[in-house]
Amino acid sequence: MSLDRREFLRASALAVAGVPLLKSGLGTVPQEKKLGFALVGLGSLSTNQIAPALMKTKNCRLAGIVTGTPAKAAAWKAKYNIPDTSIYNYDTIESIARNADVDVVYVVTPNALHARDVIKAAKAGKHVLCEKPMEVSTAQCEAMIAACRKAGKQLAIGYRCQFDPTHLECFRLAREKVLGDVRLIDAAFGFPAGDPGQWRLNAALSGGGPMMDVGIYALQSACLLTGESPVSVSATTTKTDPVKFRSVEETMTFDLKFPGGVIAHCSTSYKVPGLNRFTVHADRGTFGMEPAYNYGGNRAWRSDNVPFTTPPVDQFAMEMDDFANCIINGKPTRVPGEQGLRDVKIMMAAYESARVGRVISLV
Amino acid sequence: MSLDRREFLRASALAVAGVPLLKSGLGTVPQEKKLGFALVGLGSLSTNQIAPALMKTKNCRLAGIVTGTPAKAAAWKAKYNIPDTSIYNYDTIESIARNADVDVVYVVTPNALHARDVIKAAKAGKHVLCEKPMEVSTAQCEAMIAACRKAGKQLAIGYRCQFDPTHLECFRLAREKVLGDVRLIDAAFGFPAGDPGQWRLNAALSGGGPMMDVGIYALQSACLLTGESPVSVSATTTKTDPVKFRSVEETMTFDLKFPGGVIAHCSTSYKVPGLNRFTVHADRGTFGMEPAYNYGGNRAWRSDNVPFTTPPVDQFAMEMDDFANCIINGKPTRVPGEQGLRDVKIMMAAYESARVGRVISLV
Repeated sequence: MSLDRREFLRASALAVAGVPLLKSGLGTVPQEKKLGFALVGLGSLSTNQIAPALMKTKNCRLAGIVTGTPAKAAAWKAKYNIPDTSIYNYDTIESIARNADVDVVYVVTPNALHARDVIKAAKAGKHVLCEKPMEVSTAQCEAMIAACRKAGKQLAIGYRCQFDPTHLECFRLAREKVLGDVRLIDAAFGFPAGDPGQWRLNAALSGGGPMMDVGIYALQSACLLTGESPVSVSATTTKTDPVKFRSVEETMTFDLKFPGGVIAHCSTSYKVPGLNRFTVHADRGTFGMEPAYNYGGNRAWRSDNVPFTTPPVDQFAMEMDDFANCIINGKPTRVPGEQGLRDVKIMMAAYESARVGRVISLV
Repeated sequence: MSLDRREFLRASALAVAGVPLLKSGLGTVPQEKKLGFALVGLGSLSTNQIAPALMKTKNCRLAGIVTGTPAKAAAWKAKYNIPDTSIYNYDTIESIARNADVDVVYVVTPNALHARDVIKAAKAGKHVLCEKPMEVSTAQCEAMIAACRKAGKQLAIGYRCQFDPTHLECFRLAREKVLGDVRLIDAAFGFPAGDPGQWRLNAALSGGGPMMDVGIYALQSACLLTGESPVSVSATTTKTDPVKFRSVEETMTFDLKFPGGVIAHCSTSYKVPGLNRFTVHADRGTFGMEPAYNYGGNRAWRSDNVPFTTPPVDQFAMEMDDFANCIINGKPTRVPGEQGLRDVKIMMAAYESARVGRVISLV
């Protein structure tokens, strides 16, 4: 992964200066040395989570926005003091290439628009952070990876839990067999979907229902806890409200089988409340989180009652700081496009499994 | 269901006398009016659970034993003061027909011997209570039902949780939609199997592994909570210790799909610790039990924190008293052979699903 010259110089200068800025919790980077992030898509996630998180980062700053809604542009300009030259719409987004203030484009548009926006950002010479799920087909994911590789830019997927110390501690407990070998993982994320008009219920924009949106968290937990990718998936869907859920699944249960023999027994739903947990059954005990997947206020537990001492964090801030860190230091992200592609492949196989009533091999 | 004359007279006499003996917690039946139970198979379940439970019943008494092990016969004779004329082995079991002191035969032998023993008991003119799982094939179950029907005797399956007020309260919460429509059920029962030489690990005697032994509890919970029978099943197995589990599955996850749209997402294992729960996700809240399937000490909970006021009971004592009650009053048991057959059919379909990697229809 090549770094462009400006970033290389910046990283080198910081290294020479010995500024310990890249470790979370240590020091603060001068404003002009922070990486500039442009947000693409100013929906509720950008508004309520990502922009506030950006303000908490150490290595990042809000440097631009891309929105198709002039009123949003005006509101964000006023709130975050964004210059007109860093405000784009989907007709002008390509010109972000000439904006040296923007280092990273963070794509937060509906799932089926991710490839469009990621590829434009890569062609504009920017590193790209793309919200999950990566896209709605493996072909789109592959095109995104190819575009970033061609541009010599990093592509990261917004898997925020991988930057949360409590999730990371659970992954460690599992992989280091602290409570013995892991045998079975139970993971679930879902909630009753609100507004029936939201894009997430429109398969043309979302590519699928709760599986694409939040089942992916259960899938990610299973992969991270085992440190493996599944070899097969079987899935079942159910639908009791065919009006609201006319184009996407209402509820899906899915089992992932891993090479080491672990089964991850997962569920996701836009109808069922109370699904927000993972439980890891190991030979000498059980541990997990419930709630597991909220933006904050999650709770981890161990059957041996050893307390978790990991601090609460802003997952989005940690995610963006880590990506900035990777870019500045020329290190690969832990959440590359290839991981996003793998997960889309698994989800597409889960849909196929539910459709045809068969286990689908992933190898 | 015909009652034989002696029972009819006994029930009539009790009814005339107005003795309120058949409601749990009320009164005590004179010893000579209790139904005599003969236990077939004196393994640990009979020794540690069923015989002590019999001592707590109101309507039952231990009237005989059938064992192939002379030392067990001697020990039980001494402990429970059983006359020699009520002690049988598997060569003499048929002569129990002439023992008027025995009203009910409770079959507690290994799964694959249930048909043999139930059919002999029916032919001997006794009502039969048979431990779960009913048998290892649907054909055997059907033969057992036919034999009891031909004899005009009741056949009940030992589904002890159906006699536990806390389980019953959960069924009520689900079916009466106290917390709204039920959407998803998560149920799991398993534990690390001990002695590798035990009959439960020998498919010739058990018919299968944890699914047959304890997965059936999760299956039962799902059916009782929904009040339905599933329309399809899909299952996945995994095995990490092919020596210990050479003839049976080690771990199985299975999904049951119900006519009303509920999915029951279940797991069972002889390897995984910490599996002992059911969770019911309904529209306005979640409830369940954990532990759910122990002989005692289970714990029920509701997300709205309404406390459960149901008393702890001896499930086996309740089960036997209820069967005695049904026999005396000529009422059908809530756990008939047909229900045991249904469950064996579901379990066989789950095994088939895991083997062929397809959803198996049950309708």
